[in-house]
Amino acid sequence: MSGVLYGIGLGPGDPELLTLKAARLIRSAPVLAYPASPGAESFARSIAAGQIAEGAVELRIEVPMQVDRGPAQAAYDKAAAEIGAALDLGQDVAFLCEGDPLFYGSFMYVLARLAADHRVEVVPGITSVSAAAAALGRPLVARNASLSVLPGPLEDAALRAAITAAGAVAILKVGRHMARLKALVSDMGLAERAFYVERATLPEGRAMPLAEAPDEAPYFSMILILKGDDPWL
Amino acid sequence: MSGVLYGIGLGPGDPELLTLKAARLIRSAPVLAYPASPGAESFARSIAAGQIAEGAVELRIEVPMQVDRGPAQAAYDKAAAEIGAALDLGQDVAFLCEGDPLFYGSFMYVLARLAADHRVEVVPGITSVSAAAAALGRPLVARNASLSVLPGPLEDAALRAAITAAGAVAILKVGRHMARLKALVSDMGLAERAFYVERATLPEGRAMPLAEAPDEAPYFSMILILKGDDPWL
Repeated sequence: MSGVLYGIGLGPGDPELLTLKAARLIRSAPVLAYPASPGAESFARSIAAGQIAEGAVELRIEVPMQVDRGPAQAAYDKAAAEIGAALDLGQDVAFLCEGDPLFYGSFMYVLARLAADHRVEVVPGITSVSAAAAALGRPLVARNASLSVLPGPLEDAALRAAITAAGAVAILKVGRHMARLKALVSDMGLAERAFYVERATLPEGRAMPLAEAPDEAPYFSMILILKGDDPWL
Repeated sequence: MSGVLYGIGLGPGDPELLTLKAARLIRSAPVLAYPASPGAESFARSIAAGQIAEGAVELRIEVPMQVDRGPAQAAYDKAAAEIGAALDLGQDVAFLCEGDPLFYGSFMYVLARLAADHRVEVVPGITSVSAAAAALGRPLVARNASLSVLPGPLEDAALRAAITAAGAVAILKVGRHMARLKALVSDMGLAERAFYVERATLPEGRAMPLAEAPDEAPYFSMILILKGDDPWL
C-alpha cells in the first residue's frame, strides 16, 4: 500500500495563515520534504516549524539557484527518488511549499516526476497576491474586473500589453527588475495606482506607494496596480 | 476605543481550509457579519459554522441579486451602519467572506463604507482559483508564465485577447455563460488544455475536461485553461 504525497501550501509566511488541514497533515506526517537554498534556512520549513512533530524524518532539498537548470533538475530528480522510496514503503510524505503549491511553487517539479506512479493530494494555500492586497487593505478585483499576474522578468512589451488590458495587475518576482518596472509603470501613467509590497504578513513586511519604494527589491516582493474605482458597489 | 473590523477570508468551502488565524478570530468575535441570499443559508456562515461561539451576535446581510443595484447598495448601507455602531461600542466585528475578501469578495462593499473612520484588518483566504488547480492536481503557473483571471460575463473579444496573451487562464463566474465559453475555448483550439471545476473542495465538487462538462453550470464554477507544458523544470 503506497503512501500519499501531500503538496501542502503554507501561505505567504505568517505561520498563523496555515490552514487547519495543512497543520493537521504536517503534524501527522512521518516524512517531510521541503526546498532550501544551499546553506540557508528553508523558508518553507520556518513557516511550518511550529507544527512539525518530534521524530519526523526531514528531507531537505537543496536547490541551486543558477541560470543553468541542470543542477536544479538533478536536485529534483534526487528528491523525487527519495520521496518515491518513502511512498513505496507506505509512508505519507508532506511536501512543504510557500504560498500555493501550484502557483509558481517548487512542488510542481516533484509532482511532475511522481504523479504518474503515486497517489497525490494538493492542499491549496494563500498566495502572495492575496497577502499583498490584505497588507494594503485595498480591493484587488471586484465585479467584472480582470486580474493579470505577471512575472517581473517578462519583457516590457508583454508587460505593457497585459497591464493595459487588465483591471488589476500583480507583478511578481520583482527583485532585480525593480528599477525597470518602476519606470514602465510611471511611463504608463499608472504611478498613482501602483503599490509596492515586500514580504507581506511577515514581521519585517512593508507596503507603500510604488513611487516611494526603493530601486532595490528582494525576490519575494510585488508590485500591485489597482486601476479600478473603489467598489462602492 | 473603537473595535476592529476584521475582513476574514474563509477559503473555497472546505471548513478545514480555514486558516488558524481565521478560526481564532471567528471564535473570539463578539459580533459576526456575513452575506446571504434572501431566504437561503449563508454559504459564508456554513463554512465558518464550526468555529462560531455560542452567544455571538450575528448580523445577517441579505443581498438582493438583481440587475438594478439600488437594493443591494441599500443592503450594504444598512449593514455598514449596523457594523459601524458595534465598532463604535468597542466591539470587534468579524465579517465572514467566502474565498479571499479582496478577490471578488462582498467584504469590499463594507470596507468602502467603513475604512475611512474605523480600524480594519484583512485576513487573506484561499481563492477558488487555487482550489480548482488543486482539485485537478495540475500546475497553474510555473517559472515565467503569466495568469489571467477573467470573469465569464466579459465579451468574447476581451476574453479572446486575454486568453491568447496569458500562460494560464481562470474564467470565473461561469454560470449561464457556460455554452458560449465552451464554444469560444473550442474555437480557439484550446479544448484539450481546458478543464471545468465546480465547487472545488466541497463534498459535491467535481472536476473534468471542459469537453465533458455540461452546458449548464452554477455560479460557483470555473474554467481553467492550462497552456503551459508540465514543469519538469
